[in-house]
Formats: sequence, structure tokens, C-alpha cells
Amino acid sequence: MKIKVGIVGGSGYTGVELLRILHQHPDAEVIAISSRALQGKKVKEIFSNLVGLSDLVYSLPDDKNLNNCDIVFFATPHGVAMNSVGRFLEKGIKVIDLGADFRIRDADNWSQWYDMDHTQKSLLEEAVYGQPEVRREAIKNSRLVANPGCYPTAVLLALKPLLENRLIDCSNIVADCKSGTSGAGRSANQAMLLSEASESFKAYGVSSHRHFPEMKQELELMAGKTIGLTFVPHLLPMIRGIEATIYVDLLESDVDVRPYFENAYQNEEFVKILPEGIYPETRSVRSSNYCQLAIQYVEHSDKLIIMSVIDNLVKGAAGQAIQNMNLMFGIDEKTGLSQVGLLP
Amino acid sequence: MKIKVGIVGGSGYTGVELLRILHQHPDAEVIAISSRALQGKKVKEIFSNLVGLSDLVYSLPDDKNLNNCDIVFFATPHGVAMNSVGRFLEKGIKVIDLGADFRIRDADNWSQWYDMDHTQKSLLEEAVYGQPEVRREAIKNSRLVANPGCYPTAVLLALKPLLENRLIDCSNIVADCKSGTSGAGRSANQAMLLSEASESFKAYGVSSHRHFPEMKQELELMAGKTIGLTFVPHLLPMIRGIEATIYVDLLESDVDVRPYFENAYQNEEFVKILPEGIYPETRSVRSSNYCQLAIQYVEHSDKLIIMSVIDNLVKGAAGQAIQNMNLMFGIDEKTGLSQVGLLP
Amino acid sequence: MKIKVGIVGGSGYTGVELLRILHQHPDAEVIAISSRALQGKKVKEIFSNLVGLSDLVYSLPDDKNLNNCDIVFFATPHGVAMNSVGRFLEKGIKVIDLGADFRIRDADNWSQWYDMDHTQKSLLEEAVYGQPEVRREAIKNSRLVANPGCYPTAVLLALKPLLENRLIDCSNIVADCKSGTSGAGRSANQAMLLSEASESFKAYGVSSHRHFPEMKQELELMAGKTIGLTFVPHLLPMIRGIEATIYVDLLESDVDVRPYFENAYQNEEFVKILPEGIYPETRSVRSSNYCQLAIQYVEHSDKLIIMSVIDNLVKGAAGQAIQNMNLMFGIDEKTGLSQVGLLP
Amino acid sequence: MKIKVGIVGGSGYTGVELLRILHQHPDAEVIAISSRALQGKKVKEIFSNLVGLSDLVYSLPDDKNLNNCDIVFFATPHGVAMNSVGRFLEKGIKVIDLGADFRIRDADNWSQWYDMDHTQKSLLEEAVYGQPEVRREAIKNSRLVANPGCYPTAVLLALKPLLENRLIDCSNIVADCKSGTSGAGRSANQAMLLSEASESFKAYGVSSHRHFPEMKQELELMAGKTIGLTFVPHLLPMIRGIEATIYVDLLESDVDVRPYFENAYQNEEFVKILPEGIYPETRSVRSSNYCQLAIQYVEHSDKLIIMSVIDNLVKGAAGQAIQNMNLMFGIDEKTGLSQVGLLP
Repeated sequence: MKIKVGIVGGSGYTGVELLRILHQHPDAEVIAISSRALQGKKVKEIFSNLVGLSDLVYSLPDDKNLNNCDIVFFATPHGVAMNSVGRFLEKGIKVIDLGADFRIRDADNWSQWYDMDHTQKSLLEEAVYGQPEVRREAIKNSRLVANPGCYPTAVLLALKPLLENRLIDCSNIVADCKSGTSGAGRSANQAMLLSEASESFKAYGVSSHRHFPEMKQELELMAGKTIGLTFVPHLLPMIRGIEATIYVDLLESDVDVRPYFENAYQNEEFVKILPEGIYPETRSVRSSNYCQLAIQYVEHSDKLIIMSVIDNLVKGAAGQAIQNMNLMFGIDEKTGLSQVGLLP
Repeated sequence: MKIKVGIVGGSGYTGVELLRILHQHPDAEVIAISSRALQGKKVKEIFSNLVGLSDLVYSLPDDKNLNNCDIVFFATPHGVAMNSVGRFLEKGIKVIDLGADFRIRDADNWSQWYDMDHTQKSLLEEAVYGQPEVRREAIKNSRLVANPGCYPTAVLLALKPLLENRLIDCSNIVADCKSGTSGAGRSANQAMLLSEASESFKAYGVSSHRHFPEMKQELELMAGKTIGLTFVPHLLPMIRGIEATIYVDLLESDVDVRPYFENAYQNEEFVKILPEGIYPETRSVRSSNYCQLAIQYVEHSDKLIIMSVIDNLVKGAAGQAIQNMNLMFGIDEKTGLSQVGLLP
Repeated sequence: MKIKVGIVGGSGYTGVELLRILHQHPDAEVIAISSRALQGKKVKEIFSNLVGLSDLVYSLPDDKNLNNCDIVFFATPHGVAMNSVGRFLEKGIKVIDLGADFRIRDADNWSQWYDMDHTQKSLLEEAVYGQPEVRREAIKNSRLVANPGCYPTAVLLALKPLLENRLIDCSNIVADCKSGTSGAGRSANQAMLLSEASESFKAYGVSSHRHFPEMKQELELMAGKTIGLTFVPHLLPMIRGIEATIYVDLLESDVDVRPYFENAYQNEEFVKILPEGIYPETRSVRSSNYCQLAIQYVEHSDKLIIMSVIDNLVKGAAGQAIQNMNLMFGIDEKTGLSQVGLLP
Repeated sequence: MKIKVGIVGGSGYTGVELLRILHQHPDAEVIAISSRALQGKKVKEIFSNLVGLSDLVYSLPDDKNLNNCDIVFFATPHGVAMNSVGRFLEKGIKVIDLGADFRIRDADNWSQWYDMDHTQKSLLEEAVYGQPEVRREAIKNSRLVANPGCYPTAVLLALKPLLENRLIDCSNIVADCKSGTSGAGRSANQAMLLSEASESFKAYGVSSHRHFPEMKQELELMAGKTIGLTFVPHLLPMIRGIEATIYVDLLESDVDVRPYFENAYQNEEFVKILPEGIYPETRSVRSSNYCQLAIQYVEHSDKLIIMSVIDNLVKGAAGQAIQNMNLMFGIDEKTGLSQVGLLP
């Protein structure tokens, strides 16, 4: 008996990525997908990689097929899931929100960053921030998971062993992050035209990106204290991939941090530590659910550098959501996620 | 009991693509891989998408593990497989050559295009040109398959229904083809530097590309007669994908050719015909084994245009090879080839 | 005394390209630029390459500064210039329309392709199709020039020597053309997002592109008769550049066409014939006003192939417009157009 | 009377870029170019953007035409210029070395980073580090200029106002830098293939890049003291452009640093300060000699961020060299450098 999956808001890249990955999932199948804008259209008319592989048709969000699902993924702009997940939870349907509505635990903080009131404070309290490598057990027992943002995923995995083991100065963390354009979504947007974004590189949202509060919240939970975090996102002239280069100061310069990383991730399928002197490339994890990490201590400036790469649409979105789904249904966390990165 | 697979010449893109796809194949596993240049190195040191996913180590081509295989893929430059496959066939090991040694049936013609003598004429006679949609039964019964070139794969699938049904003027076929740079391989090559090949487009090898004789041979077998073929390859500023836009003249202008295409491919999993007015994009089949075809009749000039896209490394190389392997071992042709195209 | 230039509709790529090139023109200066959407904004706020280099501010199209110009360039969507150029011409101001309103001589034909009536038939009759290599003298004496489309520019230059010298069969001309995304303009457009158009290639507008009637009209004027033309445009995953690969049949196979090309272009600065065996790359003319041509006869199929590259925004738009302006004002045609292609 | 220019080692991107820019220089002309590998070949055979625009032929480095030059540019690998510039200087010919031989003042330090002895210590002492915005007068009076590296150029211009005015904590400077692939040169190199470097992003040379000692030396001269610098270069999937995002701590948080930048660069043509909230894009300066800077103070983490972009081949190499040449010959520093950035 397969897990019956629904997708609300399936017109974007997260939607098609869920469909792509779930197409290979032996224990799950998508039975309903909604999109107000595309209602009545076939999924394969919108996403040409699915020609001959899917007969799904977009419905409205109140389609009753969604009520027959075991789990519903929300891939909607912020503010939508908040007001819609309740009716699924009431029916015993689990929910994973790939948007931002349940990521920030403090409703006021959320409101400040997302410019609207949070209407569902008790659900917010209940929701589990879904990073399996951080809170696997809570995810297993939850019915509402807030799937992490792409930048936070890359940064949290890079800093977890350092923060949890109290190895670094928490007041001076710099996360210089770079993302492909797919992170900006599929909507028509002048700045994301190939003619504008290709063959160029720039910083954006310096100190004001909405992934900042989420990243800070989770890092502080790991550190057990307030942190000083500078996060600068940049736009890469490519489709998929996030790289984070993170600069921190060790509390004790002569500590070898590598064993802490190896210990933290030795049982984690989806986090790989690279050997000394090898730095991660985003393409190594393109289309896969893996995160690759490298650690480099720079002696002359006494700085520790951690580099982290993920595919923003997989480990940074749809893949991690499916990993969470697997946990929530008690099946092997890796199921359906065995795709090797597409290289070249 | 899994099919034991060996790869000879696994240092290039065809090699890593075989590893990527076979990693998900439920009935096959790679037990040996050779490369003179990389002997002793771990595969994951060369291909970073395999970090944590493969413990294979490159051996020399005479590694005895290769003798324990059920099938050996040759991913070597022309002239290598020719002199090496015999020792595997003698041991009852099947062979698929992804290179060019057994694609052209006429040894003299081969010699002319590849600038060396063909030393294995009886094997050449025995080898089956491995396009499943054209000669499935012969492949099933063969022990030596010549895996088609990437350009020929795209063009042959586009023209098969037209030639076999005698619908077009065979004397005037124009195939304007475009390929990503991965078709040129992984060797250091100034012309394929990102700084040289990106943000640019050009024709190359006009009338002199080595895929020409192979393409002509197979098209003539379909047509049952000599054809007049003009083939111009072009280099695209991207990694993966081949598109062929093919111009032909119908023998009778008022024939609707669409039913012939639908009929030819109705039972073929890996060839999809697009609806009227939709033209194929290479990204729709990126990382997948599919070919997408479109047909457009242009009334004002009385020309029929067929457009065909494949991923040159999958349907144009490693994927088609695995499809052939499945046939040779009597298992479902689609096994291990269910990956959906990576879009975006 | 510099030529005073105005630009109507300066919010797009043609606008910024006119500004870029004219910035280096010793005998012309832009004194007014309009855009309804950007009225009141500084040009350098919209186009960051002009920071510190331009103090122009967008006005409305009825800005009186435009009336003080010696020439006005229209870089507007079709249908706009048609109704606006009259008031400039009346004042003795010359006009070059970079849009499509005056390219097709037959008003009914124009209406069919552009879905609106042509309101200015006498101006249409007066307008000169501005390809300097074809009708230099008429341009010199005109006050209204229709600047050619980008695809037609590449194709016309490639076929001129063949048609004018009656060397080919006019009934079977195939122009397989490829363009970078800048040809689609700067407006937000989902299909032109980097995430959609990068790492992919496709045909579009097969048999229905609006450059078809213009191309056919001009080729027929060269040929002195009706032609059979098949034109298929394709979208390249890059910003700038057009390549046309054109397939024709010689009337007499043994004619050497090269001397006809050399003769036709020996005095043309902006058309270069490449040596035998060298094929043009779009990057060779990136940012420059040059067209590079190559000729290749394919003996086995008795086909003549001509390859042509231009920068669609320069020789295919703003550069050719400035070349026309120079002619209209009696100054050296090459003035301001000496930029060498940007390679790499 | 034009300045007669020679180029030693003109087979790479710096060579072709010198030719491209000097083609438009009204007061200089290239009369000789050498390359051991390309001796006897025409420049236009190697660089197709020069077809029809240059009749130069590569000579050997001892070509006597070089002796007739007023200035010789060295665009050679490190270790070559060192032993060759003397013979030109002796003849009264000025020299600009675009390589690394004279950038680091301390010969032992140079030897450590470049793995060979420095054979010309007195020339090293004489050479002027050629950043016009830092030491214009010394350049004017020099006969031997060491043209700065590309990364140092971007970083030095970003930090100069802060260091010279003693505004920041010098012990904790982080320069996270990103470069297009043209910085790696034109030699065949597997890692720089389009198939390898496109659609990917990675750090490289962490703490070990050869631009580090040069950057540190110059920053310390500005600061008047030892600094703590962490420099991490990254490879961008594009051809041209460098972006540096630099993280520093202000000595006094409430200082507004913008006036210091405006003051430092108010008379500098080639350095532009962007308005508050606008961040620089590499494409804004593609093909131009400009540097664009932005300043952003992040209150929540008390960090000052400076972003800097240049075209690595222009302001980071050939353009800055020509700027230096202009200074050395007493002509307007901006001559020949008026090209506007190529956007899009």
C-alpha cells in the first residue's frame, strides 16, 4: 500500500521536483496536485520532462482528492499554508510545508520578516523544523513539519558540529552564500532573465534576506546562546546549487575539529565530509539529496572555514521534504532518494 | 543474482554516466572498472558525485575482476575495443562497445573515416548496431553490441517512420544538429574550455564528422536505398543535450505523417511524440533515457521538419547501452532507466 | 557640431546598446531618451553599466527635447513608431525605426503578420529597408529608415552574392537559425528565465516567426523572383549572438562561389569572409558590428552551406542603426563602430 | 606620433585583450607581438575577433621589432619577465609586466610563493606596483611597472579608504572573492572545461592562492601595520568578472564610512561608488576598465561589508596596464579606455 501524496501549489520548481523524485519512490505516489493558475491543465503540458510519465491534472486547492491523501506537501508562497493546513491535519492527514509559514517559532518575529500577522500560533508551536540530521525523532512523531529553507540547510549542517560542541566564538560568524537562480522560482521576473542573470554575479539582500531569522534561530538552538551572524546571499549564473563559505573563529586554535564533524555525521547518509584539501563543488550534488562539507583551518589568520554544498531544490527543498515524509511514515529515510548527483 | 558489470576505460563522461545510472539499477552492479591513466585511484576521487557512494578503484584493463563479469562495457577511444573484446567474448562475457569500432559494417569505409585498419572483420560482421527501437530482437540474441553514436541516435529515431514507410524524397535530407560540450569528452582541450565555448555557438566538422557514415549506413538500411544526406553538427554553449532539426521533402504533400510516427513508437517507452505545435527542448530529457520528437509541416515551402532531442550521455550513450544490456540479459528493457529528466 | 540623437522607447536592450555604442561615437550625442514606464528615472539607475557615464533621465515620448534632435531612433514595440514618426519627419528630423513597422513593403502582408492595420501607407512606401550592404545610396538619401530584423540581417548577407548572381535554385532554401536570449528583449518572461532557457536548446516559431516575411521579401528582391524559403529559429542558452546555417542547391555544381562572395564584400568593412575550412563563431563578433561568413560545399550531397554570424544587438540592431545614421548624415559609415569583438 | 607597443607572450587572454583595447587607442599601436608556441602564425588565425582587423604575425621573443617599441608589455608566466625585461630597459624601452615577477617586494617571500629564486633583486626594488589609484605619481616616473593581480585590484580598491583612514580592525579582514574562468587562462586544462566548470561553483586555493601575499603586502602598506587577512577565491561558471565581498569590523560602530569612500575616489574616473542599497554586478563592468563599489553596514552583527566588482581581464589586467602606460607617457590616463560595460 503506497503512501498517497498530494501537492498544493504545484506550479513551481518545488512542485516539479517533488514529482520528479516521487516518480522513483517505491512506496509513495502522487494522487493529487493543485494550482489555482493552472487548474485543468495537465502537469505534462507545464513540465515537459513529464511527457509520457504523468497523467496528473491540476485541480483547485479544495479538490477532494487531496482529502484522500496520507500526506500533503505545501509548495505555496508564505501566508497560504498557514490558513490551509488545519483542515488536513483535522482529517488525520500529515502536512509538510515547504514554504516559510512554520519555520520561525516566534510569531512576532515571523510577522516582522514576512509583513503579515501569523494567524495560527498553536500550529506554529506544534510544527517541527524539519532538518532530519538535527531533530530526527521529533520529525518521526510529528504531523506538521516546517521544511527548512535552502540557505539555512546548507549553513546549519556546516555549523552543527562546531556549535553543539562549543568549539567556536559565537559572536562572529560570517556566512557568505551563493545560490543558483532556481531558488528565485519560476515566476516571470526581469532580474532572473537569462539575459540579466547569466554571465554575471552579485550580492543581494545583504542583511535582509528572509532566511536570516530562520538560520539565526536554529543556530542559536544549537549553540545554546545568542549568536552574531552575518549572512550575505549572492546570485550565481547557473540553475541549481548552493554553496556556503563560512568563516568562524575557534575558541582554541589548536583544536582539530575534523573528528567532531566525522562523529556528528558518521551515521548520516546525506552528509559527506570531504578529505583534507578537497573543496566541494555544487555539481557534485546536482539532482541529489546530498550535502558535501569541507573544513579548512587557515593558520596565518587563525580562521576556520567550512564549505558546504547542496542542491537547493533537493536537499534544500523537495528532497529533504521527502526525507521528512519517510521519517513521518516510519520507512527507511533514504527511500526514493538514491539518485547520484548529475555530473557532468 | 545481479548482473556483474565491468567497465573498460572508465575515466570519461561515458564511464561516470554508466556508474551513475547503474547505481540505481536493481539487477546489475559494477564490480570492476579500468583506466590506464587512473590505475589505483578511487573512482570517487575522480568523480565527486560518487563520494560516499562507490568504493570502486580503477584497475588496469587486464584486471582479472573483469573476467568475472557477465558483461563488459567498453568506453574507450576507437581502435581499443576492436583488439580487446575477443578475449571477453571467448569467456562467454557479453560486450557492449560504446565507442566506434563496430558501428560501421564495411571495414574499408570504417578505415577511411577512422584512419586505421580494422583488424577484426569477423567480429565486425557479428556485431549488432544497438538501437533497440530498430533491431530489438537482434540485440536480444547478440553477444557483441555496437552502441550507436549520439548524433545518429537522435537522427535515426526522427527519420525511421518516414523512411520505412517510404514517405520522403531520400535524395535531399538535411540534418542540422546541435550538441552540448560533454559530447567532446573530458580530456583537456582548449576549444572546450568554458572561456572558449560558453556564450558562443558555431558549426564544426561540416561534412566531415565521424558520425556521418554511421548515420548514412543506418538510414539507408531503413530506406532500402541510397540517400543524399547533409549533416552539419554545431557546438552548444551547455553541457548536455542534442537537438536535431531535420528538413525533408514529402513524396506526397498531402500525406499526414503523424499517424506513422504514432504507430512506429506506440509501444516504445523511450520515444515520445509531442503534440502539434510543441517543439522539444533538450532539458526535457536531461539525465533521462528519453527521446522527444516533434513534427511540423511547413506549407508555404512544402517542407517537413522533424525535431528530435536526447541527452547525448544517456540515450546517446550510457542509457542506451544499459537498455541494450537489459535486452541481452532478458530483463525488462526499462529496468534502471526510470529517471525523469532534470528540469529545471 | 555633433549629431543630436533622441531615443524613443529606451527601456530595453536596443536602447541601452544604442547608448553604449553612441557613448564612443565622436560625432553624435544622445540628448533625449523616452520611456513611458521609466519616466523620471535616471538611465544609470536602470542600466548599471552607465553608472558615472550618463546623466540622461527618461522622459515621456512627447518630451520637447526630442524635437531638438537631428535624428530619433525608435526602439518601440510594433505599432508605436508607425503613428509617431510623422511628427518628427515634419520637423525635418530623420528617423530610424528599429522596430518592425516599416520593414514590410506590402501593408496587407504586414497586417497579416502583425495583427493590426497599417495606418501609414505613404510612409511605408517612403521608408528604406536599411541594410547598408544592399542599398547604401537609398539610405543616404532617406529620412526614414526601417532597420532590419536580426535574423534577416544574418541571412540576407549570407545569400546576397548567390542570389544576385543567380547561382542557386531559389525554390529550396533552408535557413536554420539560432539566437541568444537577448533577442527576446528585457521584459519579464517566464520562458526566458535563466532557470528555463539556460542549459537547454529548442526550436520555436517554426514557420511562423515574424522575421519570415521580411526575410522573404528582401531575398526575393535580390533573386528577382519568388523563392521557396524554410526558416526555423532556435533559442540558444546564451545572451548575444545569431548564427545562421543555410542550405542551398547550386544551379551548377562545379561553380566556385567563393569569388562571388569576395567580390560582393571586398569593399564592405563589416562583412568578413572566412578562409576555407574555418567556420564562424558568434563570440568573434560579440559587441561588434561585424558579420562573419563561411562557405562550404559538400560534395557527397551536392549541397552548398553558408554560415553567418552577427551580434543580434549590434549588426542585428543598434550597430546597424548607427551605421545607417552615419550614412544619412554623410559621415564615414564606420564612425563609432570600431569596437573589436569581445573575446573571450 | 603614436606610442609603439610590443607584447611579449601574446597567446593568451591578456594578449588578445591588450590587442582589443589598443585597437581603439588613438595614441598607441601594437607593432610587434611574440609567442614561442605561435611563432609565424597570424594573430587573426588565433583570435577570430581580429579577422580583418589585424595583420600582426607572432614572432619569437627576440624579434628585433620589439626593440623598436616605446613600451613592451609582458604577458608571460612567472619567471619569464624577470630575466627578459632588463634588455628592454637598457635600450630605454619602458616595461609593464602583467605577470607576477615584480609584484612582491620581498624576494624571499616571492620565492616561497613562486617556487623559484628571484634573479633580479635590483629591478624588483625599482619596480612600481601599478595601481594608479594608489600610487599614480610613482607610476608616472617609472620605467618598470608591476601590473597588479586581478583579485588584489578588486580588494585593494575596496579597502583603501578604510585602511588609510584607520577606520577598521586590521586583525580580522575576510575577503570572499569569486572569479570567472578567464582568470585561469587559455591553456587546455581539464578543470576549466565547460563541461566541468559550467553550472557549478566551488572554492579553490583556500589560504594558498598566489595573490594572497601581494594583497597582504599592499593592504599592509595602506594600513601602516600588519593585518590579519583571510582570502578565499571561488570559481564562477562564467567567463569574465571578479566580485569581492569583504567583511570587516569598524573600530567605531557609529562612523559613517561613505564620505571616506567618496572623498577617496571623487577624482578617480575608474572607481564608482554605488548608492545605498545597490550592490554591484560583475556584468556592469564587463569589457570596461571600471570598478564599482558598494558599502553596507549590518547593524545586527556590527559588520561592515564592502562589495567590489571588476572585469578581471580589463581593470584586473590589460585595461589597468594601458592606464599605467598612459601615465608613463604623460597622456590622459583615460585614453583608449572609454568603452562602456557590455550589458546585457
